[in-house]
Amino acid sequence: MKSYQVIFQPGDQAMEVQEGSTIMEAMDQAGINFDFPCGGQGKCGKCRVRVPAGAGDPTATEKEILEPMELDRGIRLACAARVHGHMTVELPERLQHNILMASGERTCRIEPHLKKIFVQVAEPSLEAQRSDWHRLKDSLAGQGYNSARLEIPVALLRRLPETIRRAGHGVTVVMYGSKIEGLEEHDTTPAMLGMAFDIGTTTIVGYLLDLYSGRELCAVSTLNPQTRFGADVISRITFANREEGGLEKLHAAVLGAINKLIGEALEKAGAGKEQIYGVSVAANTCMHHLFLGINPGNIAVAPYVAAVSEPVVAGAAELGIDINPAGKIFVLPNIAGFVGADTTAVLLAAETDRSTGIKLVIDIGTNGEIALGSGERMVACSAAAGPAFEGAQISSGMRGAAGAIDHVQFEDNLAYTVIGGGRPLGICGSALLDTVAGLLELGMINKRGKLLPPGQLTAEAARFKDCIVEHEGQPAFVLAGADKTGHGRPVTVTQGDIRELQLAKGAIAAGIRVLMQTLGVELDDIQEVLLAGAFGNYLNPHSACAIGLIPSELEGKITMIGNAAGTGAKLALLSSSEFRRAAQVAESVEFVELGSYPGFNSIFAANTYFNPKTQQKGKKVAVKQ
Amino acid sequence: MKSYQVIFQPGDQAMEVQEGSTIMEAMDQAGINFDFPCGGQGKCGKCRVRVPAGAGDPTATEKEILEPMELDRGIRLACAARVHGHMTVELPERLQHNILMASGERTCRIEPHLKKIFVQVAEPSLEAQRSDWHRLKDSLAGQGYNSARLEIPVALLRRLPETIRRAGHGVTVVMYGSKIEGLEEHDTTPAMLGMAFDIGTTTIVGYLLDLYSGRELCAVSTLNPQTRFGADVISRITFANREEGGLEKLHAAVLGAINKLIGEALEKAGAGKEQIYGVSVAANTCMHHLFLGINPGNIAVAPYVAAVSEPVVAGAAELGIDINPAGKIFVLPNIAGFVGADTTAVLLAAETDRSTGIKLVIDIGTNGEIALGSGERMVACSAAAGPAFEGAQISSGMRGAAGAIDHVQFEDNLAYTVIGGGRPLGICGSALLDTVAGLLELGMINKRGKLLPPGQLTAEAARFKDCIVEHEGQPAFVLAGADKTGHGRPVTVTQGDIRELQLAKGAIAAGIRVLMQTLGVELDDIQEVLLAGAFGNYLNPHSACAIGLIPSELEGKITMIGNAAGTGAKLALLSSSEFRRAAQVAESVEFVELGSYPGFNSIFAANTYFNPKTQQKGKKVAVKQ
Repeated sequence: MKSYQVIFQPGDQAMEVQEGSTIMEAMDQAGINFDFPCGGQGKCGKCRVRVPAGAGDPTATEKEILEPMELDRGIRLACAARVHGHMTVELPERLQHNILMASGERTCRIEPHLKKIFVQVAEPSLEAQRSDWHRLKDSLAGQGYNSARLEIPVALLRRLPETIRRAGHGVTVVMYGSKIEGLEEHDTTPAMLGMAFDIGTTTIVGYLLDLYSGRELCAVSTLNPQTRFGADVISRITFANREEGGLEKLHAAVLGAINKLIGEALEKAGAGKEQIYGVSVAANTCMHHLFLGINPGNIAVAPYVAAVSEPVVAGAAELGIDINPAGKIFVLPNIAGFVGADTTAVLLAAETDRSTGIKLVIDIGTNGEIALGSGERMVACSAAAGPAFEGAQISSGMRGAAGAIDHVQFEDNLAYTVIGGGRPLGICGSALLDTVAGLLELGMINKRGKLLPPGQLTAEAARFKDCIVEHEGQPAFVLAGADKTGHGRPVTVTQGDIRELQLAKGAIAAGIRVLMQTLGVELDDIQEVLLAGAFGNYLNPHSACAIGLIPSELEGKITMIGNAAGTGAKLALLSSSEFRRAAQVAESVEFVELGSYPGFNSIFAANTYFNPKTQQKGKKVAVKQ
Repeated sequence: MKSYQVIFQPGDQAMEVQEGSTIMEAMDQAGINFDFPCGGQGKCGKCRVRVPAGAGDPTATEKEILEPMELDRGIRLACAARVHGHMTVELPERLQHNILMASGERTCRIEPHLKKIFVQVAEPSLEAQRSDWHRLKDSLAGQGYNSARLEIPVALLRRLPETIRRAGHGVTVVMYGSKIEGLEEHDTTPAMLGMAFDIGTTTIVGYLLDLYSGRELCAVSTLNPQTRFGADVISRITFANREEGGLEKLHAAVLGAINKLIGEALEKAGAGKEQIYGVSVAANTCMHHLFLGINPGNIAVAPYVAAVSEPVVAGAAELGIDINPAGKIFVLPNIAGFVGADTTAVLLAAETDRSTGIKLVIDIGTNGEIALGSGERMVACSAAAGPAFEGAQISSGMRGAAGAIDHVQFEDNLAYTVIGGGRPLGICGSALLDTVAGLLELGMINKRGKLLPPGQLTAEAARFKDCIVEHEGQPAFVLAGADKTGHGRPVTVTQGDIRELQLAKGAIAAGIRVLMQTLGVELDDIQEVLLAGAFGNYLNPHSACAIGLIPSELEGKITMIGNAAGTGAKLALLSSSEFRRAAQVAESVEFVELGSYPGFNSIFAANTYFNPKTQQKGKKVAVKQ
């Protein structure tokens, strides 16, 4: 039999469809959730779509239901119009939603995973003594469901007789595919919320969304309470495996935080937990496993494999998530042991799978996840940057919290900003980058990373020579002295801090080089650099390029895309096809294990050096806020 | 595309199959569980089947794997041979099993619901860092599973990493369709048991079966502990709805009994509960609902609808059944509120759905379930016989337990047998039938059921005139007097008892007449009468016909089929296609509601009379044991 291409707009989803199929059947094939209130019988006229190309002649049903003007405009009924050639179908507005990203908007088609359907169940009679379940199936069949495939758990069968009768036979059925997940009295279809989570090692962020409109109702966040069992992924894996009940403690901690955030979000929005029917989760592979209660131990030892990378769908009760018991949890897929579902979510948000040009996507943290490629081929790696970017193992280092110097400017004088204002208590990663970048551009640090003593400074740098002090026999740069009363420690960048930063930036830079080699591309071939994650969106991109964290040739191509992992989680929550797309994204990315990449050690070593060009240019570093 | 008919032997299962399909694909379509150890790649030669008709030329693969002699005998490989015309396929012996019934054997093809598959999971490497779940899916794909459709619950993902590694990567996967239900270390495929239950209102019977060989290992039984909350269905429904926590008490009681019987059976067989992977349940609609924890309340009030009639499949933990947690519970489908899954099981065992002749199937109890028809059309009803057949509301009545007179013979003298021997304590249903039948044949009871006083007896009956005493102003028949010491009550059949029996037999007989009218058949059209259930297999069929419980014209056509509900439960446990067939059986039976059948009251009244022919014939009643 002949087949034709049907393209659904917006989104350019293309399907091969057999000749003579209805648009409804093509939608079904494409996994598009669309309402057919009369069950696709051509009676209600509610499945109007516009067919800008390939509409063909209207059927008798369409001529009866639609106005001549509508027919002229290409309006057709999805249940009646048949495919007799290549066709473009425009889905109605209400199915579309634009999600705000730092870099602009990302359009997605709203396709809730769970559907709520209000049905009027027939009353039984002596003439038709069909069981309650039989009559409910009949009602759903009237809505286009195949009653032979419908499934219901025993727990709902137990509630079925009373629910139907108490509701005067009008009930709302919560469906997941052909499975009945919930039964509610009367028509509750308008109420359907969901939460999208990005579970980071340090921070958990959650977004409360309306699953019908896509509207974000509020955002909430908290420190990941697992932090008290270990600051980073490796220390938590160790805790999970060395401590009695360690895994259970970590699992309980993240579950508790998720449930608390759900409660907070609901309070903000004035809604109840029974209104939440879906939760999506993006997380790095270790956080992913701990959220699911799976021991992440094998991620930490060669060959670093995850227990599961594929998307996980589970019931709310199965996972202990405190939402409507009919609700489902949608966990995005991991790519590898150290390139997790958070990276998948970033790539989904950035739509790298549909990009024709090559993009470099970087999420910098203790592990920097780097992906490079286009819709054709995408490679990714995880670079062990260590904690320098988070201010750890830096003499005056601290997290990007109140009191941290976060940005530094070398103008005529030294200028800096402090988070929350007031006296600086320390320095966070972004300011460390700014400082070292500035010192490099002033020639105060050489290619090897050595901070020069006051006597060796150039004339241009001489104005900062008083900032150089001696620290453990080596020069150090003082950003802020102890205050006049002698209270408070001075905030200093030491030679040791510069070495730490060299290791960190070297790891990321080496990862980028390895991916470029793997893909066989040069810097010129890279069309865009996308910086994701909290740190990536806080740093000064110029400083990042100046120190060689990102090749300086790419500076003009950098776009900050905010918490793209959160955006990806939102997409996966609002749209079942975006969730399925995430699986394709994760599956298609080729993971490159840096540890076993030939010559990685020398590539890494070479990238710990600074780029002499930076010093030659001697550009001014401007804070770009 | 052309399609052909493929018939699988034994069982005559016919499928329409597209031209060019392999036999493997046809089996898949027919739902036949068949092992393809090499995944259907034509390598192992283990999927040999005989094709007595329509084999066609062997393929290259078959010529390579099979001996010329085998090819000549019609042996083919199911994975390689293709359908190019109508075909008959003989499945190997090991898939067949004969189940013993009281009436002979019933052949069924063994097709376990759950499958155990031993796989060797690949070890991960730096070059192939696929997740544990990914590698397990790959192993299953090697066994012919479509890895994209495989599902695993989070609880098993949690155990996956450790199970794989502790077992040296050799694990047994318990599959239900494409769902993974269990994971076991090493090769545990040989161990797979199941239990089939017939949950009666009074008695629960369980059978422990080997799910591979079909062999019955032992049978166990117990009184239904719900009896203490009410002797019959209606009193239990009342208890469930009137008492605080009544439903929960009834549910807990039957669950407790089931779990206790499982324990007993396992002890007898020397097996462990982790070896049980399946439990099937046949029960009347009320027992069915109480087993599932569903309120049966609506069964008792018009229009008498069940909450669920369809087959129910649930997890062991979901229902609280103490077997391997991977195990599943298969509950047979009900037909109507008062024609339950036990009747479905009886019809399945009796294969009425494939009968060309018309059969009358009767399961006599407090409610008599009656079915009449053939593979073409089957009608059924429930006749409210009341408790007379169980000895209740009969002056000297008792259950068929030790001390009960169970059979009576009117020879030269009165002769009877007592269960367990010794002095009679009372009379059970079968003896009540014998007594009344004998008295009728001696002319001691008239058409209207009146027991004649000694003075009105015929010459032939005169020898029993001393047995007639006066009881509450009416004649009564003494079967056994008080003993000589004056201890013990005499065992008597009173006029009141005869009236009770008339109501009971009238209800069943009226039900049979209504079904005959509905189907439009006469007594001559009925080919066979099948008596199922404990009482039906204990009574003397001649007595049943003499009193008109069963039309006397059918006496020569009666076959006792034993606990056919138990047999049906066994079939549904051993074979997934028999379980599916049960759904078709239940679905196809047309339920006739006697209460709303036009003129039912007069039909019932007419059938409470005795048949004058019985008296005219004056046959001797022989005990047929």
